[in-house]
Amino acid sequence: MQNGKHRVVIVGAGFGGLYAAKALRHADIDLTIVDRRNFHLFQPLLYQVATGVLSPANIAAPVRAILKRNRNTRTLLGEVTGVDIERSRLNLKEGAIEFDSLILAPGSETSYFGNDGWAEIAPGLKTVEDATRIRARILAAFEQAELEQVPDRIRRLLTFVVAGGGPTGVELAGAIAEIARHTLTHEFRTITPADSRILLVQGGERLLQGYPEELSANAQRSLEKLGVEILLKHKAVDVSERGALIRNEAGEEQFVESANILWATGVKASPLGAALRDATGCELDRAGRVKVLPDCSIAGHPNIFVVGDMASLDDAQGRPLPGVAQVAMQQAAFAGRLVVDRVKGRATNGRKFSYRDRGSMATIGRASAVADLGSMKLTGMPGWLAWLFIHLMYIVEYDNRVLVLFQWCWYYLTWNRSARLITNPEEAKL
Amino acid sequence: MQNGKHRVVIVGAGFGGLYAAKALRHADIDLTIVDRRNFHLFQPLLYQVATGVLSPANIAAPVRAILKRNRNTRTLLGEVTGVDIERSRLNLKEGAIEFDSLILAPGSETSYFGNDGWAEIAPGLKTVEDATRIRARILAAFEQAELEQVPDRIRRLLTFVVAGGGPTGVELAGAIAEIARHTLTHEFRTITPADSRILLVQGGERLLQGYPEELSANAQRSLEKLGVEILLKHKAVDVSERGALIRNEAGEEQFVESANILWATGVKASPLGAALRDATGCELDRAGRVKVLPDCSIAGHPNIFVVGDMASLDDAQGRPLPGVAQVAMQQAAFAGRLVVDRVKGRATNGRKFSYRDRGSMATIGRASAVADLGSMKLTGMPGWLAWLFIHLMYIVEYDNRVLVLFQWCWYYLTWNRSARLITNPEEAKL
Repeated sequence: MQNGKHRVVIVGAGFGGLYAAKALRHADIDLTIVDRRNFHLFQPLLYQVATGVLSPANIAAPVRAILKRNRNTRTLLGEVTGVDIERSRLNLKEGAIEFDSLILAPGSETSYFGNDGWAEIAPGLKTVEDATRIRARILAAFEQAELEQVPDRIRRLLTFVVAGGGPTGVELAGAIAEIARHTLTHEFRTITPADSRILLVQGGERLLQGYPEELSANAQRSLEKLGVEILLKHKAVDVSERGALIRNEAGEEQFVESANILWATGVKASPLGAALRDATGCELDRAGRVKVLPDCSIAGHPNIFVVGDMASLDDAQGRPLPGVAQVAMQQAAFAGRLVVDRVKGRATNGRKFSYRDRGSMATIGRASAVADLGSMKLTGMPGWLAWLFIHLMYIVEYDNRVLVLFQWCWYYLTWNRSARLITNPEEAKL
Repeated sequence: MQNGKHRVVIVGAGFGGLYAAKALRHADIDLTIVDRRNFHLFQPLLYQVATGVLSPANIAAPVRAILKRNRNTRTLLGEVTGVDIERSRLNLKEGAIEFDSLILAPGSETSYFGNDGWAEIAPGLKTVEDATRIRARILAAFEQAELEQVPDRIRRLLTFVVAGGGPTGVELAGAIAEIARHTLTHEFRTITPADSRILLVQGGERLLQGYPEELSANAQRSLEKLGVEILLKHKAVDVSERGALIRNEAGEEQFVESANILWATGVKASPLGAALRDATGCELDRAGRVKVLPDCSIAGHPNIFVVGDMASLDDAQGRPLPGVAQVAMQQAAFAGRLVVDRVKGRATNGRKFSYRDRGSMATIGRASAVADLGSMKLTGMPGWLAWLFIHLMYIVEYDNRVLVLFQWCWYYLTWNRSARLITNPEEAKL
């Protein structure tokens, strides 16, 4: 499109990318948004796909359907390989796109701290495929246990280790406990699913470390009520087909035989961060995130912005901003508005992004959640209702909202998780 | 379970297996049902998963959830490898199960008439994975076309060849036409999806050959109205990455460049048929189906029944029974009742299965279908409403019925297909 308009390219159609596109939608520019997937994924509910309540399509919406009314916007399905600074080009596997302004919001991926071989054994939860793989493994564990004769093997199949006590780990552990104690009741003739052992291993001294302490305590009590064993100040230091080696702060180790290890700890920035460093000399932090200036651009390149999980930026108090959707959305909107103003010829010098924390929340099982809404801290059923409505609000596409709400109601009333499929069964081998 | 009860084993949890289990549910027996998948799949709606209207979980229900109230029934996830006649055992990969009566309902799979290499290029539509693969390919074709510059390549990407003019082929071709002409409108900036070419290749002289002629003619008109090109008396005789070689009755050939070939022709029985022949000496027909006696048992083994797609049996007029759900359900119920009566000591000699044809139907697009209900033949909107209610009635699990109905209404009102995900993108490479 060589019509002389300012060309903006957005990389990633997660929360960051979509909010940048939204901020830019009425601008007189040529906007291109590139993602390697054809859908926006509502990651906060991914654990519900992994545990059989929702289907992948319920929390995903095609990017080009979301943006079809944005007349200035072109959607491309492509894989970004790097940035060519000299020619102001974004390189894709499929070709190259020229840009005048670039907003990078590619997100993050699961980190195994250098032990990439663990990925096969202990799947993380970042993509739709991760979620259906975890779902297949959880369900296949019970199926295989039903066929098994040897007690030790049954015990290994019915032992679940969740590494990481952040929101994802807490939500996964709670959901697995409910599957074992409620959903599967009366469905097996040989094993008793309720005998399953669910371990939640957390390195820090409490669950949900970014949350107020009272909410952490509440989450712990709720999980324990569901029968989850919580190991604080413990870490999974090795995983294998047989199980997980768990070490406490004192260096004492125990080996837990388990066929089901889920990895909800450790996140690293998209590899695009390293590509950007190679191209621009920008600095990366330990997690591979790009250190950005207060206006979310990178040093020496005021037209290149990094927002969301791949950006490393401190708040006014000098604390690093967390890798959550709220930060990505607010940074993206900020960067988008900045580009709009620049195109309009308005002054943008000296602008600084400032984050407004609107709170955080996590569910623990069917009708219980903890919610930190700043002035208000909710737990139990009120927390769950707050969680429910806020999540529904942010799900893209009206039909998905209805489908999700119906399936939640159904689950609430019957304990039945309606999306209990083992697909691609070769991946579920335990 | 060595409690002296008569042991019945059912293989397969499709329509046949479930109806056999239903017929046997109150009997004083030990019943085991084995399937290699953990869910019953409502195959008649699989094309709606392949074309993005429904999610896999909407047309699948966990076998053990369906049967959890059947106290005499044990569900196993296992892969059957053969039958050991001497020891009355069914061999599984996972072990062996003894039986007194055996009901085999393993169904059928896609046949490439000996050209198994075509499977990668021209996927069939038999499993959930087939459906999500086809969905990924259809969507990825449009995505790749949007990135492409060379007109010939764009044309190849936007040419869809459906081989086979039975219900599946008709339904797929109609749905693809609607995706191209309606769903994707306004979503692309470079290509015009409505320019897509959709070919339906049918060997016979009309579509839907088992149906009354007037319905075939109506289906053809409806598809042509949607812009589908129909090639009757033509066959795809070779397929490759580049496209399909199509030959007519006179032996004239044309090569159609296409990145999207779908295989809706050719079905063969489960390989378990051959295993059964090796074990019992029973006869197979050309499609690998087991020739059964009028009571659905195999010659010389009155306690082994074969029902559904793997059974070969003629009706009273000497015509082979078709491979449809109705036949499987009725045969399975027949065999199940026969076993119940035998266990109760009632005479079962000389019983013969007789098929009652309740009609057949196929949809053509959003609000049109042909339905042959015996005395009544419906087309257009009435046909579609009949199709809709009959299909809803047979979907297992109440929540799936609601979810399917909502998504149909949504699609009916907006043309929007809400499950448009390219998952496992490495499979979608064109």
